[in-house]
Amino acid sequence: MRSLLSCGVRTVRHTLQKKMHSTVSCSTVEKKYQVRKLEISDKSKGFLELLQQLTVCDSVSDQEFQNRFEELKACGDDRVVGVIEDECSKKIIATGSVFIERKFIRSCGKAGHIEDVVVDSNARGLQLGKKIVEFLTDHARSVGCYKVVLYCGARNTGFYEKCGFEQQAINMGKYFV
Amino acid sequence: MRSLLSCGVRTVRHTLQKKMHSTVSCSTVEKKYQVRKLEISDKSKGFLELLQQLTVCDSVSDQEFQNRFEELKACGDDRVVGVIEDECSKKIIATGSVFIERKFIRSCGKAGHIEDVVVDSNARGLQLGKKIVEFLTDHARSVGCYKVVLYCGARNTGFYEKCGFEQQAINMGKYFV
Repeated sequence: MRSLLSCGVRTVRHTLQKKMHSTVSCSTVEKKYQVRKLEISDKSKGFLELLQQLTVCDSVSDQEFQNRFEELKACGDDRVVGVIEDECSKKIIATGSVFIERKFIRSCGKAGHIEDVVVDSNARGLQLGKKIVEFLTDHARSVGCYKVVLYCGARNTGFYEKCGFEQQAINMGKYFV
Repeated sequence: MRSLLSCGVRTVRHTLQKKMHSTVSCSTVEKKYQVRKLEISDKSKGFLELLQQLTVCDSVSDQEFQNRFEELKACGDDRVVGVIEDECSKKIIATGSVFIERKFIRSCGKAGHIEDVVVDSNARGLQLGKKIVEFLTDHARSVGCYKVVLYCGARNTGFYEKCGFEQQAINMGKYFV
């Protein structure tokens, strides 16, 4: 299962989509589900529990979370984590991140790498994954990247093709633990 | 051709391997071809010309090169570019880079991303690609990464499997220019 669990980008299948629609749709979807940058208070809003739907994400202390949050914040525009908070439940229901790689190729160009995209299993069908990917892609474009890349399992290629991505190469990995 | 030219990791096919063997093999291969970190003087040793064998890599000014070099150096262990210099010709004949991504998953774990691996077309068959990949992989392991990943074209999967990598997912990309 490692290859499935560990791929960088995955959207979780839903089982309770209708329930989610009926309980959280207070107003228009477009207005409600805005992407914003991660805030330190999101730890208490289920951010890590959401990531557990993607892969192994053991609990971390508040201090560990704060340290990592500040490390990423110090990177400025080179590292952005986007989240969508459900206004009704006050829970984080979608997230994804992008980091900017500074290269020598392409006239010292920059490439955006999208990682760790996940939508709550109860919130599928609301186009939240698309919103997250567009947010991250727009960020990469805005800071001057010549491309943005990600990797995903075969079953998610259709989703990313709808987001404007094309299949390009094969992702390979080596695990130390 | 975009998908071929733009993949992050590629080893260039050789045409003049025998010539290289005869002109640069002054002593044992193992001793001669050591990987070291990129130095600013490597611009004048054909570093960018080598990258041109991988993908688009227009010439940049000394100032642009220095700026990028210093940006990466400021990242410390989070960004390493490895090179192999041929002791006889004083040219850079192999390179590759790794950057460390700090995540929230895996107990605030870290992942290494290998990019822009290329071996001079005249220096194939000397196991330089393997040396570069091992150098970058060892670095990722040494700084506590739980995995290292890369992406490559289908024809290079065998090479990376020999380096201990496994196929995991599909790389997708979106180009802005």
